[in-house]
Amino acid sequence: MKAQIKAVPKGTVTSPEGFFAGAVSAGINERAAGKLDLAVLFSETPCVAAAVFTTSKLKSAPVVLTRQRLERGRAGAVVVNSGCANAFTGEHGLVDAAEVAGLVAEGIGIDPKDVLVASTGVIGVRLPMKRIRPAVERIIMSRDGGSDLAKAMMTTDTLPKETAVGVKVGDSEFTIGGAAKGSGMIHPDMATLLCFLTTDAPVETGFLKGALKKAVDASFNMISVDGDTSPSDTVLLLANGMAGGEPISADSPQADAFRQALERVCVYLARLIAADGEGATRLIEVVINGAASGLEARKAARAVVSSVLVKAAIHGADPNWGRVVAAVGSSGADMDEGRIDLYLGETQVIKAGRALPAGKRVVNKLLKSKEINLSVNLNLGKGSATAWGCDLSEEYVAINSEYMT
Amino acid sequence: MKAQIKAVPKGTVTSPEGFFAGAVSAGINERAAGKLDLAVLFSETPCVAAAVFTTSKLKSAPVVLTRQRLERGRAGAVVVNSGCANAFTGEHGLVDAAEVAGLVAEGIGIDPKDVLVASTGVIGVRLPMKRIRPAVERIIMSRDGGSDLAKAMMTTDTLPKETAVGVKVGDSEFTIGGAAKGSGMIHPDMATLLCFLTTDAPVETGFLKGALKKAVDASFNMISVDGDTSPSDTVLLLANGMAGGEPISADSPQADAFRQALERVCVYLARLIAADGEGATRLIEVVINGAASGLEARKAARAVVSSVLVKAAIHGADPNWGRVVAAVGSSGADMDEGRIDLYLGETQVIKAGRALPAGKRVVNKLLKSKEINLSVNLNLGKGSATAWGCDLSEEYVAINSEYMT
Repeated sequence: MKAQIKAVPKGTVTSPEGFFAGAVSAGINERAAGKLDLAVLFSETPCVAAAVFTTSKLKSAPVVLTRQRLERGRAGAVVVNSGCANAFTGEHGLVDAAEVAGLVAEGIGIDPKDVLVASTGVIGVRLPMKRIRPAVERIIMSRDGGSDLAKAMMTTDTLPKETAVGVKVGDSEFTIGGAAKGSGMIHPDMATLLCFLTTDAPVETGFLKGALKKAVDASFNMISVDGDTSPSDTVLLLANGMAGGEPISADSPQADAFRQALERVCVYLARLIAADGEGATRLIEVVINGAASGLEARKAARAVVSSVLVKAAIHGADPNWGRVVAAVGSSGADMDEGRIDLYLGETQVIKAGRALPAGKRVVNKLLKSKEINLSVNLNLGKGSATAWGCDLSEEYVAINSEYMT
Repeated sequence: MKAQIKAVPKGTVTSPEGFFAGAVSAGINERAAGKLDLAVLFSETPCVAAAVFTTSKLKSAPVVLTRQRLERGRAGAVVVNSGCANAFTGEHGLVDAAEVAGLVAEGIGIDPKDVLVASTGVIGVRLPMKRIRPAVERIIMSRDGGSDLAKAMMTTDTLPKETAVGVKVGDSEFTIGGAAKGSGMIHPDMATLLCFLTTDAPVETGFLKGALKKAVDASFNMISVDGDTSPSDTVLLLANGMAGGEPISADSPQADAFRQALERVCVYLARLIAADGEGATRLIEVVINGAASGLEARKAARAVVSSVLVKAAIHGADPNWGRVVAAVGSSGADMDEGRIDLYLGETQVIKAGRALPAGKRVVNKLLKSKEINLSVNLNLGKGSATAWGCDLSEEYVAINSEYMT
């Protein structure tokens, strides 16, 4: 069925009907006095919920608790804090996370089991409960509180990350919104990344899970900042059905439009995260075409955006194509040196394995733009994939040498 | 059988009997005028030879040629150059590599098929044959030319890397020497790394291959500088038998001593490479004990030394233990948060998953020393492994932003 998908002007995680949010400064990180660092997202009607979590064997207490609570496939609210990840905190961490959720449930008047939890920040330190307890009471939620929530999630992020799209498909109209944080520790397989997605569409549970997994694979799992994986990664999707109508399932005429709109929101947020990597000055988009399979295309695309040498070369606007080809070669994806084509934006720089004498000025200008697009055709098959990353700057090292001290 | 293994004072790759080397400045890299960049290693009697090569699908021309020539399991000489990797150079690259080998064979008077080739430097550029042809003729080989060869291999390395050990076992006496280069692009699975190992021990081919594989797995495959893999990696082992005696095989009484001595040479060179990573100021040694298996221990050890966040934290002498635990957690190795012990040198900083209030001054002093030892006990099984890496400095980024421009 024909669908219209349009960006909502100034869209946020509370753009869909029935979602409320609010944030306060609880003083969780003493060095960031006054910064919003504790927020609640709430739906006035119960939601069908799905999530994707970190693949690390070290899971933060909020991840353990939220995963367990989501087994019922429903939720009513999420409480999130920055400044402390509540990870590697043992049994205490679980008790603290449950207490925060309980306070929020009490304030809103819902079942504590319907409150999910997410945290981001320093690992190995307990939540400062003395500061959090009174702060929870100060949170005031409103329909336009989405942006405050996006701000409260930020750590070394330089910009809040949020968006929403409106979808019209047949007689149905619904909205999907999202807020995310990234910056440090961002890597394929969901390194420190929190993302809350909301929709007022009515969605059947099984379909919701499948659509979320697919959208995450095409977006958050295709970005890399530094190759590290965090114990806290969480992408949550809440659907409250307030737009009305029959629940969307895989067979519904609205299914494709829902999938597309969800992927669009996720890719938009993922690109913002990649562009705002710690110390980043440039967004790198890598497209792989002609791989032997889709899986090999994903491997190759991720290898190129993850290559420290490619990242450093792009930071220095250094046209070192050999590093791009070397990253593809070491990714494990099949390649034939004599077939590779490489484009920088629209300009072809390698043809059938040979460097072309591309105009130095053009290349130099392209390499200095804020967004670099590298497109590789392996000319072996039909697999393609896109990944996003950022350049590696001296500032990245400075930020990460002094995070705690 | 009881064995004595001792370092040879000022040992080099030509310390074993019958090996000769020489180097010249061919001017391969115009920006490094006068630097030794072309060298030949030669044995006066034919050698049994084994090698381990890059795992990248992109293989440099010298790797393709040398791998093919080694199918016969023998060799007489190796020619190596720095300044140009002769990688991603297509058919031309193979022709150039074969020509260099041919010139060396002619000069020495041996079969060209017995001459192996190795190159390191920029990718995607052809060898400057006009400069190399006359330079080959100028090379003068001598028994004490080992150090010149080690210098000629260097690119961004700040120090030549060479060593030798003497072995006495029963009535046998033999020597093992080695020279290596590393610096950029060093990663588990043998990123840009050239290493030539020599011995005057008589060694049976099958045993030589197995012993080399094992020594490389415990040394060069356990180091990481930046996570990138190069198309040029080569570790070569030549055994000329000039120490006399029966060929050593897996059943020989000398087998264990040979293995140990070879591993000692490889670990020594691997540590030098890790410590001399581009922009590195500190060597990081990570020991994993108590893993569920040896394989999981290797995974975990490599994950910690490869973690950009751990590397940056150590550069800043920032006691961020959470990053070490997070790296173990995301390595894929089994772990139980509540069982982990972590030591910094001799000082325990985490016990059964809880951070100990270790003396700040002690920790600060230890984190500022040139060699940092992190030792993790997962307390799950008997697997252990050691890996080496270096810190990540602002200078690393500066070096790699400006490599070609």
